[in-house]
Amino acid sequence: MSSCCRVALLGFGTVGSAVARRLILPESTSSTIRLTHIFDRRAAEKRESLCADGLTWTSSIDDVLHSGADVVVEAIGGIEPAADWIRGALMAGKSVVTANKQVVARHGAALLTLAARQGRQLRFEAAVGGAMPIVRAIGEGLAGDRIVRLVAILNGTSNAVLSQMEASGCSLDAAVQDARSRGYAEADPSADLDGEDARAKLSILCALAFGLRVDPAHIDIRSSASIGAVDFAQARKRGSTIRQIAHAEFDYARRELTAWVAPVEVDCASIFARATGPQNAALITGAHSGEIGIFGTGAGGDATAVAILGDIAAIARDKAAIVPAPILHSNFTILNSLFAEAS
Amino acid sequence: MSSCCRVALLGFGTVGSAVARRLILPESTSSTIRLTHIFDRRAAEKRESLCADGLTWTSSIDDVLHSGADVVVEAIGGIEPAADWIRGALMAGKSVVTANKQVVARHGAALLTLAARQGRQLRFEAAVGGAMPIVRAIGEGLAGDRIVRLVAILNGTSNAVLSQMEASGCSLDAAVQDARSRGYAEADPSADLDGEDARAKLSILCALAFGLRVDPAHIDIRSSASIGAVDFAQARKRGSTIRQIAHAEFDYARRELTAWVAPVEVDCASIFARATGPQNAALITGAHSGEIGIFGTGAGGDATAVAILGDIAAIARDKAAIVPAPILHSNFTILNSLFAEAS
Repeated sequence: MSSCCRVALLGFGTVGSAVARRLILPESTSSTIRLTHIFDRRAAEKRESLCADGLTWTSSIDDVLHSGADVVVEAIGGIEPAADWIRGALMAGKSVVTANKQVVARHGAALLTLAARQGRQLRFEAAVGGAMPIVRAIGEGLAGDRIVRLVAILNGTSNAVLSQMEASGCSLDAAVQDARSRGYAEADPSADLDGEDARAKLSILCALAFGLRVDPAHIDIRSSASIGAVDFAQARKRGSTIRQIAHAEFDYARRELTAWVAPVEVDCASIFARATGPQNAALITGAHSGEIGIFGTGAGGDATAVAILGDIAAIARDKAAIVPAPILHSNFTILNSLFAEAS
Repeated sequence: MSSCCRVALLGFGTVGSAVARRLILPESTSSTIRLTHIFDRRAAEKRESLCADGLTWTSSIDDVLHSGADVVVEAIGGIEPAADWIRGALMAGKSVVTANKQVVARHGAALLTLAARQGRQLRFEAAVGGAMPIVRAIGEGLAGDRIVRLVAILNGTSNAVLSQMEASGCSLDAAVQDARSRGYAEADPSADLDGEDARAKLSILCALAFGLRVDPAHIDIRSSASIGAVDFAQARKRGSTIRQIAHAEFDYARRELTAWVAPVEVDCASIFARATGPQNAALITGAHSGEIGIFGTGAGGDATAVAILGDIAAIARDKAAIVPAPILHSNFTILNSLFAEAS
């Protein structure tokens, strides 16, 4: 509490720049948290866009790893070199906050073990659900329950596209154009529409909720890219609409996991139908607490920055606290019973 | 992580007995958490109802305070002697988990300061929202945002009563009878219907969300006890229904807090209208993340036990971690502009 927590940021894109601006602004920054380094491959071009006392821009990762930073925020995306740099930061005795679902889905358990051994923290609230604090809700708030099912919208881009098709009756291509113009979709949104993005997030939630080590590639996905206006018209006749849903259900006795991501019909009165634009939503069913619902802005620099700043604050509060590696199991069967459930 | 976390429980009523049974069951108990003591004034009568190896029943609080327990769970309710015993447990070097909104609302800041000085934790997820993890969502998950408004259903009993009146068209008295028969209301539900219970919880959320020290007595309340079937009929004509809403909004520039609890009309499509039975629900507005919603079972032994067990697990994971006392401010004005807003 007494000393200042120094933060180094990797990546000055949409998310990274939102984090940096929040840390620099006096409004939201705790005086105990200070941004000291920004690493970006194009540091030379970008450095003009953000200046502050004591802030070093660099395009050398070693400058960060050898710096006095206490926390490294990874906002680069992609698996490599991000995973390697997270490993390097932990090895150098720094705690790490990441928004990188692909790295956490694939290497989360190993990185958490490394963090625990180093006496440092690895936090990843921003990897799932944007500003919707679902990682804490499942990993900590509902740690006292036995979670049996997760049903969620985890991809803001596909939700923006599908809810726009619902609202305007337009084609998928037009809705993708609209989402791009609002900053909700990248030039190539196929990883979002195909379910790649959502299944990485679902794999992270399966580890937190069920203690299972699930390779994202083993979660069945069905693309939303072929959904058309006619599908929405038919759904509407049944009092439904269409959303990309990530579904996971674990039978503890049989050790069978059912997990899939697909565009499915949801009741118009459900929280999923009510999630529009880049919103995310989740229904978590616990054996003891029943259904817990949560929803919020799932994409965008500002929302993701909120999750990252919350993780930085948690580390700054207690730099010595170790987040233990979850005990993960791999002796289970994935059923992927999408077709049975969706039909 | 290596040593076992020993838990002593104060109070074997609805919540306490639910916690004890979950801790005794092999299903849900981590092998690192062990129930060692149950304190109850009527220990002699109740001890037959729960037996386990190494479990001591006592009706002497000193037996608990002088025991080797690492965590004391306070599930007694009421302000005294609960506050005094929490203080005693912290002084004796134990961490404390409490479901006691009245104690946290009135003495939370002082007790958190004491816990931090002692190098121990005080956790109170169960004091607000039952199994809905709103304390973590606001205190940690949204710590990276600037929360400007909270609108919530925080009292499960009044929600069960009002939603039953809506569904059946019955009188308030009949709905109270129904809630009692389902275990959602005590013999005298006036603290629930009058808003006393909800304003204590709102005061806790104001501390977490805005950093304000708000005496619950300064939050204006309007009772739900005079709501009748005719009020619901009129609301229905406007596409609304009636719920007990706790509302808090902070103007950071003017340092003005608007805070009240009252039965108000809510849109039938809102998450508040959709909360039925003992459910709780909350909409949290952040300057950066927009609206975050959360809902879940807000009352009952099982749901409250989930929140308590989550807090015990957090302490067991890291017995040394200190939850710092929030920095609270008292230089602000409470506007209580209920009448202007509700009309």
